[in-house]
Amino acid sequence: MRIALGQFNAIVGDLTGNAEKMRDIYAKALDSDVDILVFPEMAICGYPPEDLLHKKHFLDDNQLTVEKLAADCPDKTLIVGFAGNYMGGNYNSAAVLQASGIVKVYNKALLPNTGVFDERRYFQSGTSPTIIKVSGLNIAITICADIWDIEWLAKFLKDAGEIQMILNISASPFHLGKIKKRQEVISQCAKKFNCAVAYCNLIGGQDELIFDGRSMFVDSTGQNIIKAKAFEEDLLIADITKTADGTVKVEPAQPTRPQPAEAIDEIYQALVLGTKDYTQKNGFKKVLLGLSGGIDSSVVAAIAVDALGSESVIGITMPTKFNSPETISDAEKLAENLDIEFMTIPIESTLQKFNDSLTSVPGWDDKGIAYENLQARIRGSILMSLSNQFGSLVLTTGNKSETAVGYATLYGDTAGGFALIKDVPKTLVYELAKYINKINNRQVIPTDVITRPPSAELKPDQKDSDSLPDYDLLDKILKGYVEQDKSAKQLIESGLPQEVVHRVIGMVDRNEYKRRMSPPGIKITPKAFGKDRRLPITNRYSSQ
Amino acid sequence: MRIALGQFNAIVGDLTGNAEKMRDIYAKALDSDVDILVFPEMAICGYPPEDLLHKKHFLDDNQLTVEKLAADCPDKTLIVGFAGNYMGGNYNSAAVLQASGIVKVYNKALLPNTGVFDERRYFQSGTSPTIIKVSGLNIAITICADIWDIEWLAKFLKDAGEIQMILNISASPFHLGKIKKRQEVISQCAKKFNCAVAYCNLIGGQDELIFDGRSMFVDSTGQNIIKAKAFEEDLLIADITKTADGTVKVEPAQPTRPQPAEAIDEIYQALVLGTKDYTQKNGFKKVLLGLSGGIDSSVVAAIAVDALGSESVIGITMPTKFNSPETISDAEKLAENLDIEFMTIPIESTLQKFNDSLTSVPGWDDKGIAYENLQARIRGSILMSLSNQFGSLVLTTGNKSETAVGYATLYGDTAGGFALIKDVPKTLVYELAKYINKINNRQVIPTDVITRPPSAELKPDQKDSDSLPDYDLLDKILKGYVEQDKSAKQLIESGLPQEVVHRVIGMVDRNEYKRRMSPPGIKITPKAFGKDRRLPITNRYSSQ
Repeated sequence: MRIALGQFNAIVGDLTGNAEKMRDIYAKALDSDVDILVFPEMAICGYPPEDLLHKKHFLDDNQLTVEKLAADCPDKTLIVGFAGNYMGGNYNSAAVLQASGIVKVYNKALLPNTGVFDERRYFQSGTSPTIIKVSGLNIAITICADIWDIEWLAKFLKDAGEIQMILNISASPFHLGKIKKRQEVISQCAKKFNCAVAYCNLIGGQDELIFDGRSMFVDSTGQNIIKAKAFEEDLLIADITKTADGTVKVEPAQPTRPQPAEAIDEIYQALVLGTKDYTQKNGFKKVLLGLSGGIDSSVVAAIAVDALGSESVIGITMPTKFNSPETISDAEKLAENLDIEFMTIPIESTLQKFNDSLTSVPGWDDKGIAYENLQARIRGSILMSLSNQFGSLVLTTGNKSETAVGYATLYGDTAGGFALIKDVPKTLVYELAKYINKINNRQVIPTDVITRPPSAELKPDQKDSDSLPDYDLLDKILKGYVEQDKSAKQLIESGLPQEVVHRVIGMVDRNEYKRRMSPPGIKITPKAFGKDRRLPITNRYSSQ
Repeated sequence: MRIALGQFNAIVGDLTGNAEKMRDIYAKALDSDVDILVFPEMAICGYPPEDLLHKKHFLDDNQLTVEKLAADCPDKTLIVGFAGNYMGGNYNSAAVLQASGIVKVYNKALLPNTGVFDERRYFQSGTSPTIIKVSGLNIAITICADIWDIEWLAKFLKDAGEIQMILNISASPFHLGKIKKRQEVISQCAKKFNCAVAYCNLIGGQDELIFDGRSMFVDSTGQNIIKAKAFEEDLLIADITKTADGTVKVEPAQPTRPQPAEAIDEIYQALVLGTKDYTQKNGFKKVLLGLSGGIDSSVVAAIAVDALGSESVIGITMPTKFNSPETISDAEKLAENLDIEFMTIPIESTLQKFNDSLTSVPGWDDKGIAYENLQARIRGSILMSLSNQFGSLVLTTGNKSETAVGYATLYGDTAGGFALIKDVPKTLVYELAKYINKINNRQVIPTDVITRPPSAELKPDQKDSDSLPDYDLLDKILKGYVEQDKSAKQLIESGLPQEVVHRVIGMVDRNEYKRRMSPPGIKITPKAFGKDRRLPITNRYSSQ
């Protein structure tokens, strides 16, 4: 039996477009003479459709789209994920299409409701397995989380008879380290049931999430036979045959795909895909961003150029008297290196006027923090004005470390449409900068940008280190507090300095409101700000 | 048996403060010689604690706080809601405190995961009922949603024996019409089980949510015997006695509490409480807002004054040449009427400088929409600068109608900390204005503000009606589309004009990103923007 995994980039809500893509992939699969063609979880409507699932007409359109796809693809068995709606219940479903019709529907049983997932908000659990027989093989259909609890799955399938293959359609989002865990789960599943596993994952960026693909075939010993491309569409084909001893053989029908070698490759590719998809799926032709000559905006610009092409990225520098000639020239140099449009809009005189109007207010301090932040707000207003005028998307450049501690001006440098490196800790921003220079075989990001001590340049001789701990230390504390939900006590016991731990935790807690009103960004860590971490703004609890 | 319902304003995360309040209420209850004192769902930690529940130390602190409360309140039976954590499972729990200890714990069985609720993200379902015997009465303890599925509850309690009272501790958020539904549910429950129901609800504002209290006692015929205050703390006491025929008698031990008479009373009180609690619980002493002389900012200012006192509200008018003398004078008059601090910060010259700096950009249109919005962005920056300088909270003034269709400038008039009337449709804003004048027995909001056709005053002779349908019609479409998830087809079939329906739906869909990056506001309708309605930004689906 020949099986193809149609790992493609489904767009949320674009039912017609997704079905069209699937028809194109079907045509290709016919050429390769496959028996089954598999598409990811929710391939019809994209994932996650969120509260679109509360619209009856959306569910009806899902059903109609699956039916039409069945009619358009009559000659093979297709498995396709969609939002199912039967007798008043909603399900995360997989349709089995054969001979122009929907012959069976499997409903996902294990519904994740943690992290970024809200499936119990929308779906009821399916209660019975679906086994199909294709070319003499018994195939159990599962959806994503169904295989992540192997003991449960064994009970669920206990009356299913002999199975040669478990098919899993997924919309499994990327974060660093996820592929290792995913591979383990799939291998365990194969070994437990002594069968092949065919795993078909989505790819693409959807708001905060990146689906990384890497669909795969695993044999009954748990060995990975072939894995599809990461962060790209792919059609992965293998042959599965019963052997004399009753087990199955899994053979790739294609050459191996190159895989990301290191963590940094994965992160970089995730950021590129996320930027490309957020921009293009939302209909933007160009992006613009403020270039300060600092490392954050330099890395964001470089990623945007890789994602969208240099003709689609505009860099704007908006200096005041506090910006040094060195950083201004580095911004310009970066723009040259990236070959992007570059504009200088000095804001000193606007700042002066703005400040003049505020000096009428008793108590206004024209050297204080509000005055510093006013500069960021003027810049935010300029970028948003240009976005407004020209229809381009504003990329903000805040990293995870500063987003965590609120080292940012609300409605200033947080003003924009997409926060590309929101989940990238500052220490990793440095690694990315070096990586970008490495893969380009040249100093795209000027060395000075990487080596100069970071500064917001909002007052004379300012350094990040005046307000924040050293980034190495800060990122360690943030990992423990934000990603691992550790208490101050635990962090201090692990060897981190008491005073800094308390200070950082206080900053993180106090700045929830800023994060709530900031744009979405790309999740790359196990716990990102956004849907992944939902804390109240009004909150008197202290983890001290 | 005498029972007291301690309806109080618990603050999320303030475990110590909440316990202190409960000890004070306990002291009062002792004076009234009660047998049982009941506190709301999650009274220990406030509701909803959201991802605080992912912190092990938070759960430990819940347990310690309950234990300490038990030790501090040894002389009566107390029922208190908290976040329970046993053997690796988390529960939404009610502790029964007697003789200085926790004698029993009931775990909520029905966990809501719709609308604003995410309980299956945090909790496992309890699986067995808890019946306690106090002064000869058998009392079944339930938590919030447990009584909202009466057939399920009948099965759950079928082996519980004879019950004289169902006790329900709740954190049931307010929206218009909710009290009627809640009363029905409680009455049905009493009738079904032929017993008394004691219902203890939380009060207070928590981010988007308002808990309205109105705890109550209902007798076995389903009749409401006494209801606690709405939107205020209260200690509601009744006597429950077994009668000769085996049923129970419920008698109030206190005089009746006045209740909100009309829908508009409820809405107004909810907005006042929400404003007060968001401001004070987050540690702000003052709020500030832009006063345009329009109806939205006038209503917001009046509500803020009622919530916080006139000494805590600052109105700022920021005119350009597009603001008419009439609206400027109305803003001033309103400030006088409300007796609040009033500042004028003209922005014409800042606007001019800003525009000058942008005219260097080829294609910048100094009469276009971006130029219009620049005015809003300058105002937003001024308000945020003042907030920054003086530590006051900025109230934004956008209503639900304009929030829905995106008739607002992102990072302009949406810039602030709390969006007080975000869930109030424009037509209701008018009703509130008249209501405010009525309850104050004078023209607090000048008549002209109410009768003048609304305008953003961002260009000459601008009217909202140039860009938007008539608000009566707009609000009808929005109710159907946003609150009821109807399709264009359904709306048109219900008699709404086709062209306008399509246009409005397009606007609502396109502006999801603006809502995502705007401050939270107070939920008053069955479906508010925010946690209640979670739509993807990247979304190609059209309900047309």
